[in-house]
Amino acid sequence: MTASRIRLYVEHPLGEGQTLSLDRAQAHYLFAVMRQTAGAGLRVFNGRDGEWQATVTEAGKRGGVLACEAQTAPQRDPPDLWLLFAPIKKARTDFIVEKATEMGTARILPVQTEFTNSERIRQDRLQAHAVEAAEQCGGTYVPQVTGLHGLDALLADWPANRRLMFCDETLAGGACALPPDGRGQPWAVLIGPEGGFSDAERARLSALPFAHPVALGPRILRADTAAVAALTLWQTACGDWA
Amino acid sequence: MTASRIRLYVEHPLGEGQTLSLDRAQAHYLFAVMRQTAGAGLRVFNGRDGEWQATVTEAGKRGGVLACEAQTAPQRDPPDLWLLFAPIKKARTDFIVEKATEMGTARILPVQTEFTNSERIRQDRLQAHAVEAAEQCGGTYVPQVTGLHGLDALLADWPANRRLMFCDETLAGGACALPPDGRGQPWAVLIGPEGGFSDAERARLSALPFAHPVALGPRILRADTAAVAALTLWQTACGDWA
Repeated sequence: MTASRIRLYVEHPLGEGQTLSLDRAQAHYLFAVMRQTAGAGLRVFNGRDGEWQATVTEAGKRGGVLACEAQTAPQRDPPDLWLLFAPIKKARTDFIVEKATEMGTARILPVQTEFTNSERIRQDRLQAHAVEAAEQCGGTYVPQVTGLHGLDALLADWPANRRLMFCDETLAGGACALPPDGRGQPWAVLIGPEGGFSDAERARLSALPFAHPVALGPRILRADTAAVAALTLWQTACGDWA
Repeated sequence: MTASRIRLYVEHPLGEGQTLSLDRAQAHYLFAVMRQTAGAGLRVFNGRDGEWQATVTEAGKRGGVLACEAQTAPQRDPPDLWLLFAPIKKARTDFIVEKATEMGTARILPVQTEFTNSERIRQDRLQAHAVEAAEQCGGTYVPQVTGLHGLDALLADWPANRRLMFCDETLAGGACALPPDGRGQPWAVLIGPEGGFSDAERARLSALPFAHPVALGPRILRADTAAVAALTLWQTACGDWA
């Protein structure tokens, strides 16, 4: 909800006096799409070094150079939260990645469940969406989007100390309760596919010692709505929305 | 997150043995798009009488007839909650209406603020989006989408007993606190425009005795994300996500 200003994600280390060379896609965006020229100012971030003010020193069709000047915001990492979701239609999958970036997740893992329709994802496209969302929302962190994991395999190899908030529409009307000692811990939020979890998946999830089933109200939510609602509940109960 | 099944919003009263005639648009959707024929079953709702099982008794290009059989779900109204939001780009405005319907709002009011870019809205289009969202999410209630209100005029004529949760990104990092006695009361949630509220608007909102400023975490959210997050907080604190 801020006024528009140009923010660009780069991969270079950032620091005072650092020179940054732009690749063709970045040059196209900055000089052709956004019509910037030499001397223009913008903000850059790389996901590690905070946000910096930079100035265009060379502008070309195939590249360009920026000079990094002063830090404008410190690095701010999200809580150690993963979002697991079953990919849905293209536009809504893009939306989930965008929203997960804005809401503050460290890692985004598309998962294949029994009722997931999509068998393939374009990991590079989704990662680019996370970058764009971070550019637009003023974030200094870009969550990593992983390849598609099978839910069963992921649960079989689950990290010992990571808890799982699992959103189950069959609990509708039941209480939402996240453990009061969950703050500051590694967590994951799992959003089911549009067709819901299978009975076998639900039984398996419910039996996991690290899983916490949570209801998202009495109405049925689309998966993209459920993702934002679940992340809101988690950030409020266990994350950095204190 | 349920398996697909056809649900149709109709305006007729619903009851056992009731006959429903379909208009051209409904007939097109049901018979041409969804390829249903005479004898097919579907669910219907009208926003007042719950959800009913119906059967197609006549299918034509310009209309059709349904027979209403048995109630499949009782009427379920959302809490007495209004969502006020500043219209943004078309797709994201549509999205806010869809999400407000799923999340459970009684009325959706587009508002014009100082920094709102959009001066006009298509009220009929937005209302149709609310209907479609109710059809898809299994709801029996369709929120009314009003015309565009000026924020100042709306606040000047504010209903005496309706509280206002006002989401202010300048509070980022501050506490989210809704009053513990707010449950079961008439409320409105106000989401600001992409450019934020003006200083004058913020001062006016903060001075209102019925307004409760709430922060939505330390990151800046797009207006559509903010709408879902704010509705989640409200439903959990004051609504029907108990």
